[in-house]
Amino acid sequence: MAQKKSRQRSMKERRDLTLKSLESLGEKIYEQLVKGSFPWIQMPSRSTKNIFYDEKLKQYILGERSLKRSSRNIRHLRPFTQLVWTARFAHELGQTNKTSTLRDVFYSAQAFDMNFKDQQESDNTITDLETVLDYSREDFNVFPEERSAIFGDLTIEYTVPGYEGNRLNLTSHPDGLMIGPALTRADFVKTNADKVIVIEKGAMFTRLVEEKAFKKFNTILIHTAGQPPRATRHMIRRLNQELGLPIFILCDADPWGMAIAVTIICGSANAAHLRELATLEARWMGLYSTDIRRYKLPYERLTEIDIKRVYDMRKDPRYNDEPWKSQIDDFLKHKNKCELEAFSRYGLDYVVKTYLPEKLQELKS
Amino acid sequence: MAQKKSRQRSMKERRDLTLKSLESLGEKIYEQLVKGSFPWIQMPSRSTKNIFYDEKLKQYILGERSLKRSSRNIRHLRPFTQLVWTARFAHELGQTNKTSTLRDVFYSAQAFDMNFKDQQESDNTITDLETVLDYSREDFNVFPEERSAIFGDLTIEYTVPGYEGNRLNLTSHPDGLMIGPALTRADFVKTNADKVIVIEKGAMFTRLVEEKAFKKFNTILIHTAGQPPRATRHMIRRLNQELGLPIFILCDADPWGMAIAVTIICGSANAAHLRELATLEARWMGLYSTDIRRYKLPYERLTEIDIKRVYDMRKDPRYNDEPWKSQIDDFLKHKNKCELEAFSRYGLDYVVKTYLPEKLQELKS
Repeated sequence: MAQKKSRQRSMKERRDLTLKSLESLGEKIYEQLVKGSFPWIQMPSRSTKNIFYDEKLKQYILGERSLKRSSRNIRHLRPFTQLVWTARFAHELGQTNKTSTLRDVFYSAQAFDMNFKDQQESDNTITDLETVLDYSREDFNVFPEERSAIFGDLTIEYTVPGYEGNRLNLTSHPDGLMIGPALTRADFVKTNADKVIVIEKGAMFTRLVEEKAFKKFNTILIHTAGQPPRATRHMIRRLNQELGLPIFILCDADPWGMAIAVTIICGSANAAHLRELATLEARWMGLYSTDIRRYKLPYERLTEIDIKRVYDMRKDPRYNDEPWKSQIDDFLKHKNKCELEAFSRYGLDYVVKTYLPEKLQELKS
Repeated sequence: MAQKKSRQRSMKERRDLTLKSLESLGEKIYEQLVKGSFPWIQMPSRSTKNIFYDEKLKQYILGERSLKRSSRNIRHLRPFTQLVWTARFAHELGQTNKTSTLRDVFYSAQAFDMNFKDQQESDNTITDLETVLDYSREDFNVFPEERSAIFGDLTIEYTVPGYEGNRLNLTSHPDGLMIGPALTRADFVKTNADKVIVIEKGAMFTRLVEEKAFKKFNTILIHTAGQPPRATRHMIRRLNQELGLPIFILCDADPWGMAIAVTIICGSANAAHLRELATLEARWMGLYSTDIRRYKLPYERLTEIDIKRVYDMRKDPRYNDEPWKSQIDDFLKHKNKCELEAFSRYGLDYVVKTYLPEKLQELKS
């Protein structure tokens, strides 16, 4: 497979490029020191004033403002040193091909008397490093604790130590495979699937595995476990970009479900400094507010917090298109919400026999 | 392997026995109806007045009080009908070998105009059914959403539809395999491991996989993801009972970590009506309060809520033994706590090279 070959090179290449970019940061600082000057680093500002929504890219991006961290400035000395240490630690992780978590980074720093005030501060420094080098923390082998799962006919090849060259088909384990550090860094070898369905809830994910929906719809299934961790968003993008698979997102009919879908599609303001977490081609397939009546699903009333959130979405440029606009209006008109589990009302296989075929047909046309 | 054979029979047997017990409940009610009497069901009471700690069993158990639900009583009619419907639904799940979640059961009931007031009420009915029949909801194929993970040299054989007879070694996926419905119902075929280490945090779990600790210590690793879901506790018990593996539990040094360990070992008052969730032979290996000073780990102060929790533990009979007693005293004396990630202070492999060998040695002697 052409796709496989190109990716296999590129996963290893990407790791090498990340390491090189860390090294060149170190070299720059070293040269500044040799020249007898106080080392400094320049990076784009991530302040809200410098975050803009780009209509063409359909993403939040950083503007022109930048900031300079100089070791000459006593107030900069601490964040400057923290940034350099974090780069050094990321380099060690990359070289030894080990992973770490955000929490772990916070504690690892203490081994170097590099005391972060709290994890907030060390998390922030990692985001700084992402901004300076334009690589994501997953490239630095730093992962959060939360994990979601994937299932389907996709053969992957591991690149982590002890597993190099091992292959696994992601139908091997019917509970789904966790999208952890090893899977995130695996190459895609082969798939016969022709789409990906991304699901907010574990119950629906398991239902689609058990009802053999992955075969019927020839699909890979991803369980986001609520708002998907960044590694999962990265995986969704790769499935779309590398394998050319269309992505369909299935969430609860409520503002939180819409937020999950839009974050997968357009990314978030929090990650405005990164471009590789959005999948613009992904489609929100439901549940729509209108689906509640169309499929006569059991519903609950939107709470005041829900309604406030829907009003906020009206002002958010990411929801400026269809179907968002009309669904937001529909939510505000009817003020109902509904969970994916509500399909159980019509039996365990209704979603497979009725809802999914209808929706997929509509989104195709 | 003898163990395997006996288990393979017993997993299938267990499913058949669960179905038979559901059927005999149905028969009893049918006979009552045929005789022209209002059907009724008797079950042990789960009120706090009827929950006792059994010193010998080291578990909470239900006492002699029982209650009768009769369809003759207008106030009982609703819970009685709910219970019978739930038994019917569990039977359908078992016969078709499908699984469901607690949330799903709540919605599935609506297909039968069996409206539960809220999920609390349907959860309660499932617990009633557990109490009446003395099987756990996992036997009825009902699972919660949360999942934890397992990794190590254990070969399992699936029993779920489409996977019958498929085998998988649990080292296949370096991120660990989710302990979901399919793994919970799998048979154990073969293991070369001689122990199980159960870990509260994903960071430490990944660390032990990456550092090849599972090879060095010849251990299966389980990640509880905080307080372990019941399916995970059930899995831990099976590893101990069926394969004879000793279990070691590794948690944060704080009252919440102790609560995780004691729940795995002794079970909880909530599940006093079930005996199959406790693993009395499991050992709490740390982190102890005394480990914070012994290993010079970075610590934080116990909060007021933490301290209140520790005082509550003093009154809880499950903590009446060593090492609980002296560690509770030590927590109250020094008032410090510490997370597993704190080991990173001494580098990423310290826990493997120093802490684990020392602790395992001590627990052996």
